Amino acid sequence: MDKLFVPGPVDVGQDVMKQMQRPMIYHRGKDFSQLLENCVENLKNIMYTKNYVFISTSSSTGLMEAAIRNCVKKRCLNVATGAFGERWHQITLSNGKEADILQVEWGQVVTPEILDDALSKGDYDCITLVHNETSTGVSNPLYDLSKVIKKHDVCFLVDTVSSMGGVKIEVDKLGIDVCLFGSQKALGLPPGLSSCAVSEKALTIAETVKNRGYYFDFTVFKKYWLKKQTPSTPALPQIYALEYQLDKILKESLEKRYQRHKELAEITRAWTKDHFELFSEEKHASNTLTCIKNSKRINIEHLKAELKKRRLIISNGYGKLREKTFRIAHMGDRTIPELKELLDVIDEILVET
Amino acid sequence: MDKLFVPGPVDVGQDVMKQMQRPMIYHRGKDFSQLLENCVENLKNIMYTKNYVFISTSSSTGLMEAAIRNCVKKRCLNVATGAFGERWHQITLSNGKEADILQVEWGQVVTPEILDDALSKGDYDCITLVHNETSTGVSNPLYDLSKVIKKHDVCFLVDTVSSMGGVKIEVDKLGIDVCLFGSQKALGLPPGLSSCAVSEKALTIAETVKNRGYYFDFTVFKKYWLKKQTPSTPALPQIYALEYQLDKILKESLEKRYQRHKELAEITRAWTKDHFELFSEEKHASNTLTCIKNSKRINIEHLKAELKKRRLIISNGYGKLREKTFRIAHMGDRTIPELKELLDVIDEILVET
Repeated sequence: MDKLFVPGPVDVGQDVMKQMQRPMIYHRGKDFSQLLENCVENLKNIMYTKNYVFISTSSSTGLMEAAIRNCVKKRCLNVATGAFGERWHQITLSNGKEADILQVEWGQVVTPEILDDALSKGDYDCITLVHNETSTGVSNPLYDLSKVIKKHDVCFLVDTVSSMGGVKIEVDKLGIDVCLFGSQKALGLPPGLSSCAVSEKALTIAETVKNRGYYFDFTVFKKYWLKKQTPSTPALPQIYALEYQLDKILKESLEKRYQRHKELAEITRAWTKDHFELFSEEKHASNTLTCIKNSKRINIEHLKAELKKRRLIISNGYGKLREKTFRIAHMGDRTIPELKELLDVIDEILVET
Repeated sequence: MDKLFVPGPVDVGQDVMKQMQRPMIYHRGKDFSQLLENCVENLKNIMYTKNYVFISTSSSTGLMEAAIRNCVKKRCLNVATGAFGERWHQITLSNGKEADILQVEWGQVVTPEILDDALSKGDYDCITLVHNETSTGVSNPLYDLSKVIKKHDVCFLVDTVSSMGGVKIEVDKLGIDVCLFGSQKALGLPPGLSSCAVSEKALTIAETVKNRGYYFDFTVFKKYWLKKQTPSTPALPQIYALEYQLDKILKESLEKRYQRHKELAEITRAWTKDHFELFSEEKHASNTLTCIKNSKRINIEHLKAELKKRRLIISNGYGKLREKTFRIAHMGDRTIPELKELLDVIDEILVET
């Protein structure tokens, strides 16, 4: 079995996988309502929120589309510190919404000053941000940015796809109106499910936005949530796994989980600095994924192929960084010994080459 | 463990469930491409099509939205022979498309004459049809309707959610431009995945339709399919199960599967006529679900509760038919002895009551 050090899907524990074997139940019955409530309560704890929490049978990309379709009436500012920020701009435009893109050099974060300036210049009602950019390995300074965003009358839409569960993100304190993420990243679950916290403000706006569609309409999610149901048939196996894994994560404590992610990142960064260079500024480097600048101009495809022979999977750079960087993800239930084993094997391969 | 006689999710065989335990793989790697190709090839066989086949991490409702967003430019005719036909009208309007609804009395099918007349009266570029209406238990006469539809220059969008895999539906012969269905019905798979066959005509139209969004954009699906990938992280566990189950279904032969569904339906209809009445005309009654008119005015909630004690789950009527009908689904891998057991137990309960 391969060990995945890619930014999702992550490896899933055998105990979690087994949960997917639970028999099917009718999604319009009481057993399902209880299951859904259990998940939502725990998701609220993980997001530090009292907002509505919806579970979507889609990847996180679907919920990015949801955020746009429900909240943008006037014009959206899409902050792009990498490929997934650009993806959000693409989604905004493809849904017929007006938008500007705030391009930040890849490897950098957006600063509160730049953001304040950009928000002051346009008549925006929404801003999108990717918290943790897996294409560049940077983690935008959510807490500092939040202070600036609160000065403007905008809906704050945040993709925490690859950070939620690995890094502390206090949705209510940060004033995030839509905070979305997927199952297959730092939460250590199989793919196929995503979730979002939606503020009362975002829901009130949604009611006045035209052409929200149906599948990702927050008001439809809310209507069914009031019956403790999902609008359409949900991905039951992943919801079983979610219920179990959230319980486990909370019992073991979120703080320990954040600490482990921090240590995994520190080890990877120390190793990177010994051999290569960090692609991002160290103080903004992500705790769930490290993007390594290929400063030694090694053959990344060869490294990947050699690792694959040993059943270890890493990623090359994303898009235009394909040859210039490679990426090691360290998220979910990944342990420190497993990471060290990977780094040791890379060391061996680099010596041999 | 409950036995589900509800119109999805259906019970899933242990051997199929076990497939979901296969370890996670990277969805941008060769192993995934092979997996996706295997699934798509077999889906083409099951749909009798050479069209593009896409796999979506969503319920079928998501692909209903996809069909509308990609294909409707002018005006859509939504044929409603029940609640899911009405759902399609709701989806069409909520996506800002012009549409008319052709309402047919619940329990009836739409006839070729009525459809021809409706299509002649409006300037439509799309028509939506629910093949198998689980709210009323009718199966629209797809082959007869197809002949009429071919006379008009429209995109033919068909929901075969609860029939595909249980009933023969030859997509290419029928000239269906978008044929969509979910995993958790007659194919006997866990929920969380849906699929559609999309014609070259529909794809060509999609390229010219504005505001298709991203998550359900057929041109994005096609772009990634050319790389043998999905646009975003797919529901791997369900795709593992799909690969296995499609192989199994094709090896056991589709004809046998259709025959079993036919027999299940005939047994249920015979039982219904002995005790109650069919809600639909017999010649248009569905082979995957029977909707039973509560002609004896039994207490349906009581029947359901008594069955639930014995771990057998059926559905009451849908929406406005809640008290007037109840529904027994007989699809997927359901066997004749299992169905007979259910009917025997209902007989006992009816005698006791």
